[in-house]
Amino acid sequence: MTTVKTVTASMIIIGDEILSGRTKDANLTHLSLWLNRMGVQLKEVRVIPDVGQVIIDTVNDLRRAYDYVFTTGGIGPTHDDITAKNIAEAFGVPFVQSKAALDMLEAYSRDKEGAKAKGGGKKSDYHISDARLRMTMIPEGAILIKNPVSTAPGFQMENVFVLAGIPVVMQSMLLDLEKRIVGGDKMQSKAIHVFEGESYFAEILEEVEQAFQNVSLGSYPFFSQGKYGASFVLRSQIEVDIDQALELLKLKITKMGKESFDGEA
Amino acid sequence: MTTVKTVTASMIIIGDEILSGRTKDANLTHLSLWLNRMGVQLKEVRVIPDVGQVIIDTVNDLRRAYDYVFTTGGIGPTHDDITAKNIAEAFGVPFVQSKAALDMLEAYSRDKEGAKAKGGGKKSDYHISDARLRMTMIPEGAILIKNPVSTAPGFQMENVFVLAGIPVVMQSMLLDLEKRIVGGDKMQSKAIHVFEGESYFAEILEEVEQAFQNVSLGSYPFFSQGKYGASFVLRSQIEVDIDQALELLKLKITKMGKESFDGEA
Repeated sequence: MTTVKTVTASMIIIGDEILSGRTKDANLTHLSLWLNRMGVQLKEVRVIPDVGQVIIDTVNDLRRAYDYVFTTGGIGPTHDDITAKNIAEAFGVPFVQSKAALDMLEAYSRDKEGAKAKGGGKKSDYHISDARLRMTMIPEGAILIKNPVSTAPGFQMENVFVLAGIPVVMQSMLLDLEKRIVGGDKMQSKAIHVFEGESYFAEILEEVEQAFQNVSLGSYPFFSQGKYGASFVLRSQIEVDIDQALELLKLKITKMGKESFDGEA
Repeated sequence: MTTVKTVTASMIIIGDEILSGRTKDANLTHLSLWLNRMGVQLKEVRVIPDVGQVIIDTVNDLRRAYDYVFTTGGIGPTHDDITAKNIAEAFGVPFVQSKAALDMLEAYSRDKEGAKAKGGGKKSDYHISDARLRMTMIPEGAILIKNPVSTAPGFQMENVFVLAGIPVVMQSMLLDLEKRIVGGDKMQSKAIHVFEGESYFAEILEEVEQAFQNVSLGSYPFFSQGKYGASFVLRSQIEVDIDQALELLKLKITKMGKESFDGEA
């Protein structure tokens, strides 16, 4: 009996612009693949509006249900960026200014002024406005997450990681988290494909899945090179089980007089 | 005082392949924009795995919280297509064969045989397998949703609409729903843009939003034509309020000595 360690996460995508269809989310897939490399399984995603009570309730539901929670969106400088304040409320802690975030912002501001002066340009109108100061506020006890792209940091509050919504910024913040996440056994996956409708294989797929309780087997129809086909994806935290299940599946496909192939469909 | 009628919806994206990052969801944006044309606001989206109890609980939570619920995924012919059965469980009704769905499948099968015979091809090996029969099973009392692309229908159970996950099929199913959805006042939106960081405008954005309680005002930074900028999106079910709020916002931007522009950013 092999024991496996499973670590789980959920994601909260915060933003009216995603729900309204104005903006397509580009963070889910990236976060999921990154988590998988870290040995963490993404188990649930919720897309919610910029509404304080909804953010509070969702964060509180999910931080108790999963090992980690990742939020994206709503941490900028304007009135509709309400994520940080609501995370503080969800945890019942004061919303305070981070000295470290203020230092970063001041250093960034000085660099900008310096660059302008050196370039002989007119005096920059960059200043630390109230709006920018807003981005230095975090829940008391939170730990900053570095933003190498545009300075304004994210933060970690216990098991909740608060990230920017802009994909390039969000992705850059993950670099700072690689040492903070403690993963489990990675989910492995292998796939084979057939150029035939998936329904022909329904019976053998079920047989294979039942023979390997540790392996989940997904069947995904596709249309490629002008033909219908299906990909069969085997997933498990135990690689040897995937290999055995794959062998059995291939054998059963061959016995049906059909062909399967590896690689990309 | 203008009264507005608000009709809400939520969406459940069912599929391990979305959570694992293997497949990018392409249905959220399409559904959201379609719902908006129908006068329905998408308020929440959940992405959940192919796990029976999770499907049951999520459907039951959301069908009570919103006017409409739309699910995508998990209604094909293989063992991992468990949505329909779990919708029946969520509603506490038997899972039964739909005579109408069976008739469609038989007609489709006859057409395929006919086409093969006419083309002088060898006898088709198309037959109504157990796997295909699986796609004729629906919760008792459900109403079918036509699938003009690949025959196997979706279904409506009270306020829950069960759709295919493959985007072209999902989109084709919405055509059959245009007369079944009763919408409210449509959410209208207008946007203006600036080539300047959004933080400069934080104060006036807040002033405008506070002046128009019926209007939500989102600020979305972008990078375009080599420059940073921001889009300010005003949304409301009352168009005249948007127009007035927009006028006030433009005035305030002009008073700051900045320029704004309409159209696409």
